[in-house]
Amino acid sequence: MTIDRNGSTLNSGLPRFSGIIPPMVTPLAARDTLDVEGLERLIEHILVGGVHGLFILGTTGEGPSLSYRLRRELIERVCSRVGNRRPVLVGVTDTSYEETLSLAGYAAEQGASAVVAAPPYYLPVGQPELVEYYLDLANDSPLPLVPYNMPSCTKLDIELDTLRRLLDHPRVAAYKDSSGRMTYFHQVIRLLNDYPDKTALIGPEEMLGEATLLGGNGGVSGGANLFPRLYVELYEAARRGDVLEVNRLHQLVMDVSSSLYGVGRYGSSIIKGVKCALSCLGICSDALAAPFHCFNEQDQAIIRQRVAALSDRMPAVTV
Amino acid sequence: MTIDRNGSTLNSGLPRFSGIIPPMVTPLAARDTLDVEGLERLIEHILVGGVHGLFILGTTGEGPSLSYRLRRELIERVCSRVGNRRPVLVGVTDTSYEETLSLAGYAAEQGASAVVAAPPYYLPVGQPELVEYYLDLANDSPLPLVPYNMPSCTKLDIELDTLRRLLDHPRVAAYKDSSGRMTYFHQVIRLLNDYPDKTALIGPEEMLGEATLLGGNGGVSGGANLFPRLYVELYEAARRGDVLEVNRLHQLVMDVSSSLYGVGRYGSSIIKGVKCALSCLGICSDALAAPFHCFNEQDQAIIRQRVAALSDRMPAVTV
Amino acid sequence: MTIDRNGSTLNSGLPRFSGIIPPMVTPLAARDTLDVEGLERLIEHILVGGVHGLFILGTTGEGPSLSYRLRRELIERVCSRVGNRRPVLVGVTDTSYEETLSLAGYAAEQGASAVVAAPPYYLPVGQPELVEYYLDLANDSPLPLVPYNMPSCTKLDIELDTLRRLLDHPRVAAYKDSSGRMTYFHQVIRLLNDYPDKTALIGPEEMLGEATLLGGNGGVSGGANLFPRLYVELYEAARRGDVLEVNRLHQLVMDVSSSLYGVGRYGSSIIKGVKCALSCLGICSDALAAPFHCFNEQDQAIIRQRVAALSDRMPAVTV
Amino acid sequence: MTIDRNGSTLNSGLPRFSGIIPPMVTPLAARDTLDVEGLERLIEHILVGGVHGLFILGTTGEGPSLSYRLRRELIERVCSRVGNRRPVLVGVTDTSYEETLSLAGYAAEQGASAVVAAPPYYLPVGQPELVEYYLDLANDSPLPLVPYNMPSCTKLDIELDTLRRLLDHPRVAAYKDSSGRMTYFHQVIRLLNDYPDKTALIGPEEMLGEATLLGGNGGVSGGANLFPRLYVELYEAARRGDVLEVNRLHQLVMDVSSSLYGVGRYGSSIIKGVKCALSCLGICSDALAAPFHCFNEQDQAIIRQRVAALSDRMPAVTV
Repeated sequence: MTIDRNGSTLNSGLPRFSGIIPPMVTPLAARDTLDVEGLERLIEHILVGGVHGLFILGTTGEGPSLSYRLRRELIERVCSRVGNRRPVLVGVTDTSYEETLSLAGYAAEQGASAVVAAPPYYLPVGQPELVEYYLDLANDSPLPLVPYNMPSCTKLDIELDTLRRLLDHPRVAAYKDSSGRMTYFHQVIRLLNDYPDKTALIGPEEMLGEATLLGGNGGVSGGANLFPRLYVELYEAARRGDVLEVNRLHQLVMDVSSSLYGVGRYGSSIIKGVKCALSCLGICSDALAAPFHCFNEQDQAIIRQRVAALSDRMPAVTV
Repeated sequence: MTIDRNGSTLNSGLPRFSGIIPPMVTPLAARDTLDVEGLERLIEHILVGGVHGLFILGTTGEGPSLSYRLRRELIERVCSRVGNRRPVLVGVTDTSYEETLSLAGYAAEQGASAVVAAPPYYLPVGQPELVEYYLDLANDSPLPLVPYNMPSCTKLDIELDTLRRLLDHPRVAAYKDSSGRMTYFHQVIRLLNDYPDKTALIGPEEMLGEATLLGGNGGVSGGANLFPRLYVELYEAARRGDVLEVNRLHQLVMDVSSSLYGVGRYGSSIIKGVKCALSCLGICSDALAAPFHCFNEQDQAIIRQRVAALSDRMPAVTV
Repeated sequence: MTIDRNGSTLNSGLPRFSGIIPPMVTPLAARDTLDVEGLERLIEHILVGGVHGLFILGTTGEGPSLSYRLRRELIERVCSRVGNRRPVLVGVTDTSYEETLSLAGYAAEQGASAVVAAPPYYLPVGQPELVEYYLDLANDSPLPLVPYNMPSCTKLDIELDTLRRLLDHPRVAAYKDSSGRMTYFHQVIRLLNDYPDKTALIGPEEMLGEATLLGGNGGVSGGANLFPRLYVELYEAARRGDVLEVNRLHQLVMDVSSSLYGVGRYGSSIIKGVKCALSCLGICSDALAAPFHCFNEQDQAIIRQRVAALSDRMPAVTV
Repeated sequence: MTIDRNGSTLNSGLPRFSGIIPPMVTPLAARDTLDVEGLERLIEHILVGGVHGLFILGTTGEGPSLSYRLRRELIERVCSRVGNRRPVLVGVTDTSYEETLSLAGYAAEQGASAVVAAPPYYLPVGQPELVEYYLDLANDSPLPLVPYNMPSCTKLDIELDTLRRLLDHPRVAAYKDSSGRMTYFHQVIRLLNDYPDKTALIGPEEMLGEATLLGGNGGVSGGANLFPRLYVELYEAARRGDVLEVNRLHQLVMDVSSSLYGVGRYGSSIIKGVKCALSCLGICSDALAAPFHCFNEQDQAIIRQRVAALSDRMPAVTV
C-alpha cells in the first residue's frame, strides 16, 4: 500500500492519498448537537476495518448542512481521536471563500492532513473563474488541497483543462471525482500520468473495483462507514489484479448499494440509508441535519432486516 | 400604492410587500471588507428613486459568497441607515438551517421586516422535504418569511402544491419567483387569489411590466440599483394600466438588460454589469466577492460608455 | 389586422404571419388512419372562430409521431379544405434533411403558405451547424421558412446570434418561440425591430396576452383548437391595448390551461387534454399516435365536466 | 465465445448477442447517396477484425439523419454483403411508430437478425408509456428487439423497473446502454442475472474493458469501425480475466478516444472523427449527413497524423 501512515512526506512535500478513505457520516444527537459517543464508536469501527484515511464534512457527512460551530467541533474531535493513526481530510466546500479559508485554518490547527473542496455552488461559475478560485485556495490554504468534482450537487463539472491547471499547482495533492461518468474518470487517470505524485480517488463505490483495476488510486466509498473491510479488501484485490475476487466483492458492494441506498425517495436516500444502517448496527444515531429526516419506522424495519442479512456475508476483520 | 411604509400591519398581522424592492448589491472595499461610504451612497441613491423596500443578501447581493461576519455587518448598517423609511428584507438562504436561523434572529434584532429564503441548495431536496423545511423556518423565524424560487442557482423548483402549503402558513408573507417561466408565474398569481393578503414578486426585470399588468405585485429588479426611478415608474404605469407608457419604459429596461448584463461571459455577468455600472456612476466600488472578479479595463470601458448613454434617457427624479 | 388573407404579398415578397395561428391537432380514427370527418369539422370549427392561419404537423399536431404517408394525406386534405380562406403552415421538423425537404416540396404543391421547422433533434447540434442547416433549408425549400424554437423537445435553444443570421435570409418569414422564457422572447422582439416585415409568434398561450401587449405579433395557441374565438379576442384586445379586457380573457386562458392541460401525468398531458376535450365537444376523435394513449374513462369524465363548464364562459362567435 | 455465428438459436428461440458489435458508420458519396464501394470495403475491414456482429443505422450510423430510401438501401446492401457471416442488427429508432415498424419489416425481409430501438425522442415520454411502446414493438416486430438506452440523444432514461418489464418479454433479446453511467450499467448486469439468455452491451468504448471484466457481455464500440481487432482483443482479454492485457488495450482505446473524438467542437465530433479517420485509411468517404459537415482541411490533417500514429500501435490481424 502506498499510503504514508506516519505523516512523512514524498519528495514533493505532499502527502499521497490512496486506498479507501471513507466519507464519514456526522452522527447527530439532536439539532446542532453531535452524538459524541456514536462518533467515537464510528471512528473506531471504521479504523479497525483497515481504511487508509478518513474524510469528514463531505457530502455524505452533510458538511454544508451543519453549523460552523458544529463543523469545528467535529474537526477537533475527529482529529484528536484519530491522532496519527490515519490522515484526516476535511471538507471545506462552501459558497463563501472566507468561510472555506477559515475552516481550512482550523483544520490545520487541529492536525488534519488536507482539505477537500468542491466548487462554490450557488452562483454559476465559469471554468476560468474556477481555475482562479482553486489556485487562490491552494495558495491561501495552510493544508494541501484536494479538488472535488460533484456536479450533481454543484451544477458544474471541473473540465479536464481546468483540472490540468489545478494539478500544476504544487499544493494540489489529489483529485476526487464523483461525477459517475467513467469516461471522464479514465481521462483523469490518463492526465495523472503526468503527475506521478498525485492521485485520483473515485466517489461512487459501485465503480471502485474497476477504477482501481484500471489505474485509479482508491475510493471515497460511503458504504465503508458500514463495512469498511469490504471496501479495503476490494481495493486490495483490484490492486493485485485478482479479477475473481474483485468480481465477488464487487457483487457484495452492489448488494449494499441496491439494498440500502434506494429505500427512501429523493436524493437523500443514500445518506439516510447509511445512517439508518449504522443505527441498526448500534454504532451511532440515525438523525439527519435539516432539511432531511431519518426514515420512518417502516423503512427502518426494511433497513434493519437488510443490514443484518448483509452483515452475515461481509469479510471478517482479522486483527 | 399598497406598501405600508410605516411598519403598521394588515389585519393578518403580516406586512404586505409590493412595488419595487431592489436586490441591493453589496459594495466591497476589499476581500471581506464593506465599502461603507459606497454602501451609504447606494442606499440613498436607491431610496431617492422612490422604491418600496430594500432586499439585501440576495443573489444579486452575493449573499452566499460573503462571510457571516460581513453579512451581519451589512444587516446592521443597512437597517440602521434605512431606519423606518422603507422595509428591509434580508436574504438568509443557506445550506445550513442553523446558520439561516441565526441570521434571521440577527435581522430581527436589527429591525428588518422579513427574511427571504431560497431552498437549501447543495444536497438534492424533494418537495415534501421542502415543505417541512419552509414550515419549520416559518415557525422558528422571528420575522415573516418570503420563500424565493431560484432554480438556476438551487437546481430545484418550488412546485405549486408545495407553494400552497407554504402560503397556508400565517407567517409566510409573500413569494418571490425568479424562474423566468411566465406560465409558472401566472399560475402563482392564480394561486394567490386564495390569499389576498399575500403577494407575488417577480425577479427578472424584463418581465416586470407584464407581470404587473396581469396581476403581479411588483418586482425585485436588479437594475433598480442603478436606475431605481425607471422601475418604479414602470411598476406604477403598469398598476394604472397605461400600456403605452409600459411599452416605453419596458423598452428602456430591455436596453439596460441588453447593454449591461451581457458583457461578461458566465453566469456572473449580471452582477458584474450592475456593480461596474454603479462604479462608473461614482456610487460604489465594483469589487466582487470570490469566486468572481470585476471586469477588466476593456469591459469597464464598454460599460462606462453604455451607462452614460442610458443615464441620459432615464426618468428624472423629481423630489 | 396585418394578416394578408388573400395570399397577396408584401414588398419583400414574403407573407406576413401574425395573429392566432392554431397548432391543429391531427384527428385519428385508428393507427395510421385519419379521422376525416373529424378533421373537416375541426377545420371549420377553428376557422369560424376567426383565426388568422392554421399550423399543421407541429408538436400539438404530433407531426413527428405520424407516418410520412399520413403526413402527406393530412397536408393534402387540409390545404384542399382551407383553400384560400387562410394561410396553412406545415411543420416539416425532422431529423432527416431529405425527408424535411421532401415534405416541404409536397406542401408547396398542395398550396401551403410556409413551412415551420424546429432544429433536427436527435444528434446534438452546435449553433454554427444550426445556422448552416437553416440557411440550407431556406435556400432549398420552395416555401418561406419559419424557424421554430422548442428546446423542451429538441434539447437545443436557437441563440440570438443564430436567429439574426436566419432573419437575414430573405426567405425566412417569421419566428416561432416556444421556450417559455419571456426574457428571451423580449430579446427576439427587440431583434425584430431590424426586420420590420418579419414577425414573432409565441407558443405558450399563457403568455399570449403579454407578448402581444409588448410587441409580439401573435400566437400559436394550442387551446385555439377548442376555443378559437377566445384567443382571437385576446389577441385583438392586446393589439388595441385594452388592458382590462386582456386581463379578463387571460384569466379564461389560464382557466383552460389549469383545467385541461394537467390531468394526465407526463409531457403528453397537454395534447391529451386538447384531444379529449375536442372529443367531448363532438368535434373529432381523441385517439393519439403512439407512444401515447387517450385518457382512461375516469380522466375523460374530468375533462368532460371541465370543458362543459369552460364552454359556458367562452366568447360567442358572432358571424 | 458465446456468439452464435451460424444463426442457430438458443432454447429460448432468441439469438444471443455478445462480443463486439460495431455501430457501423454510413459511408456517403453525396447527399442521399451511398458510397457503395466504401461501404463494401468498410464491411470487409470490420469483419476481418473478428467482430461478432454489425449494427447499422445507430447513432454512429447517423440513422435518424438519413432518408428512408437510403436506410432501406443500406439495409439491403449490408445484409446481402454480410450474408450468414455475422448477425446484422438494424437501428429502427424513430419518432413515428409506423416508420419504425415498416423499417423492422424490411430488415426482416433482408435477413437481419434483430432490430435496435432507442425510445421515441421528440415528445416527452413517461416510463409507463415507454413500457407500452416497447412491448407493442416487441409484439409487432418480426425480428427480436434490442432496447437501446441513449439519454443524451433521447432526453430520457430507461429506468430499471421499465427494463425489467421489457426483459420479461420473450422477444427482447438484449439491451444496449449508452448512458455512460457505470452504476446504472452494473444495476443492469445485476438485473440480467434473472434472464440468463439475455445480454447487456455497453456503448462507450472507454468502458468496454471494465464492463466485460465485471459481467457485461460486450460492446457496441464506435472505434471498432477503425480498429476492430483492438476491441475484439480487449473483449477477449477481459473475458478471460487477463487484467494486464486489459490495461494495455484499454490504454490504446483511451488513445483512440483522446486522439480522434475531440477534434471538432460539438456533439458530432465523435462521428466526424471516425469518418475522417476512415477516409484517411482509404476505406470510405468522410461525408456526413446534414446537419453535419466533414472536417476542414486543418482538422483533417490533425486526424491524418493521429490515425497514422495509432495504426502503428494496433494489434495485427492474423488471419
